Amino acid sequence: MRQTFNFCAGPAMMPLDVLKQAQAELLDWQGLDASVMEISHRSAEFVALAKECEEDLRELMDIPCNYKVLFFQGGALAQFAFLPMNLLGEKKQIDFINTGSWSTRAMKEMQKYAKANVIYSGEESRFTTLPQERELKISEESAFLHLCANETIHGVEFTYDIADSPIPVVADMSSNILSRKVDVSKYGVIYAGAQKNIGPAGLTIVIIREDLLGNAMAITPDVFNYEIQAKNDSMLNTPPTFAIYLMSLVLKNLKARGGIESVEERNRRKAAILYDAIDSSHFYTNPVHIDARSKMNIPFILDKPELDATFLKEAEAAKLINLGGHRSVGGMRASLYNAMPVEGVVALTHFMKDFELKYA
Amino acid sequence: MRQTFNFCAGPAMMPLDVLKQAQAELLDWQGLDASVMEISHRSAEFVALAKECEEDLRELMDIPCNYKVLFFQGGALAQFAFLPMNLLGEKKQIDFINTGSWSTRAMKEMQKYAKANVIYSGEESRFTTLPQERELKISEESAFLHLCANETIHGVEFTYDIADSPIPVVADMSSNILSRKVDVSKYGVIYAGAQKNIGPAGLTIVIIREDLLGNAMAITPDVFNYEIQAKNDSMLNTPPTFAIYLMSLVLKNLKARGGIESVEERNRRKAAILYDAIDSSHFYTNPVHIDARSKMNIPFILDKPELDATFLKEAEAAKLINLGGHRSVGGMRASLYNAMPVEGVVALTHFMKDFELKYA
Repeated sequence: MRQTFNFCAGPAMMPLDVLKQAQAELLDWQGLDASVMEISHRSAEFVALAKECEEDLRELMDIPCNYKVLFFQGGALAQFAFLPMNLLGEKKQIDFINTGSWSTRAMKEMQKYAKANVIYSGEESRFTTLPQERELKISEESAFLHLCANETIHGVEFTYDIADSPIPVVADMSSNILSRKVDVSKYGVIYAGAQKNIGPAGLTIVIIREDLLGNAMAITPDVFNYEIQAKNDSMLNTPPTFAIYLMSLVLKNLKARGGIESVEERNRRKAAILYDAIDSSHFYTNPVHIDARSKMNIPFILDKPELDATFLKEAEAAKLINLGGHRSVGGMRASLYNAMPVEGVVALTHFMKDFELKYA
Repeated sequence: MRQTFNFCAGPAMMPLDVLKQAQAELLDWQGLDASVMEISHRSAEFVALAKECEEDLRELMDIPCNYKVLFFQGGALAQFAFLPMNLLGEKKQIDFINTGSWSTRAMKEMQKYAKANVIYSGEESRFTTLPQERELKISEESAFLHLCANETIHGVEFTYDIADSPIPVVADMSSNILSRKVDVSKYGVIYAGAQKNIGPAGLTIVIIREDLLGNAMAITPDVFNYEIQAKNDSMLNTPPTFAIYLMSLVLKNLKARGGIESVEERNRRKAAILYDAIDSSHFYTNPVHIDARSKMNIPFILDKPELDATFLKEAEAAKLINLGGHRSVGGMRASLYNAMPVEGVVALTHFMKDFELKYA
């Protein structure tokens, strides 16, 4: 285990065993006397790796066979543009659930291509709430409904899959993919940047129901055309091979550690430890409503904000790093992605208690 | 030095010292007790790395200060779409020099956004020729002139910078950037996927003259809008941090080995050794006209194509790997990027000679 616990919101901590394996075979992968990053993406070895990586993801997430798994570059932000380009078809409107910064940003970008129909906004509650499913008035005029399954900045996470939408539900799961069981069949598209729970920055996963392919606008770049990439096994051009390799190691690691059920239980435990510590103190506060609280990103504020810098400095000295909140909201934030061990959260809560005793 | 010489066209061989350094610090970068891929792109350490990486590129390529250096994802193929989106402005036409597969592919993609005006095509010569500069009739009606500085499949390379174009020259240098001295001031845009001479797959460099910024179409995704990324130091969203880190190591390595002049001289020597071996034999042929021959990718065919499989098999046994030509043209191809040592080319020519003696 590492001595330092890294609570960065992303790029984030990776499993130590994954990094060790990558290190061990960095100069010589599969006996090729070459690094995995030095070989052709069309070589038999790499094609087999990419295929196995997809199969492992399918198994872990229980992805139905009428869904394609695609690999892209450009992050979720790029998909904010390419989702409308690929999915709008004849329609001119998108439904939005706005639960925080990333929902808002997606909406802003997608409005270049379509009209926004906001069916829920957490703005009034300062993004501390989720909608109830029964209150959602989804429009059949819209091409799809977009939501952000976990808001990394505001710490708001969907705890349910929308069951009965008349239009495809498209979910940005960048920061909670593979952290809990999800019923993929309830979604039209699930997409995620890799740099939180999957691997390094530079890789984006798109899981799409096959019947949604084939509606791309004429202006869609080939390399971001879902149908074209599906036909080319995501290798229309050179994919980010090293990132895919690391993803494959992360998935093997997850399987070896018991798969989604096991990691979901660990994530539940980790979040409970930290929320309990916050809620039982008079010094720390998490503003999010209990049924909307994220298990991945837990923001909290100190009763005395003038101590923020001291908190961060002393935390760093205690080898608890990257706890500063996003610059747009301030305060603190602990990101507890899959790779964060329970011990890291326990160490954080001990530190918080000591800090409170010292300064409160 | 390695025992195996890897002639892959890309992703390609990287300097061994670079891989060794990456391996040594993979778990603990700069004493952070975290991998460089586990830390925020907005951390002081990573921002400093990205800045230094840009400065090293500026120094190596002697990039004038009125040019921006931008980092993207998606490869050159993505730029085929984003160049027109960013540069067309009021114009509706692009000039093309077509010297091979990649020029053709760029033209195909760019035609989604503009009319093509082909001012030179090597198609009749089966892509074995370059235009003379004086015969080019560049149209002022076009937004820019596009060319591919080095065709990896056909082995055709521009040996000169177009001196007097009335419109910006936009060059895809994916496969020869940093391999020879280039007068950047002669170009409006130079762009390159990293996976040949710069680093791993998943990173694309765009070097653009500042006055060309600000003409993006409304539909341009923010993350591929040159002006927006220039204002955000290429960090509008999470960049491919590990790829940028590797690029920074490659640039330091290049500087330590004497910079562009020194590597250009080595590349000239390497290419001369292989072309001499081909031209002095009656068994191997390179079809490209002498003044259009690439120093990076050298395709050659065997006098007896029925021996292709045997050649590749015996080469591999001799630890000379990935010599197969592109599937669209067949034959052989040796890619001699910066990281290929002279010894590798010498070993290849010895093998070729032995093979000829044995089978010719």
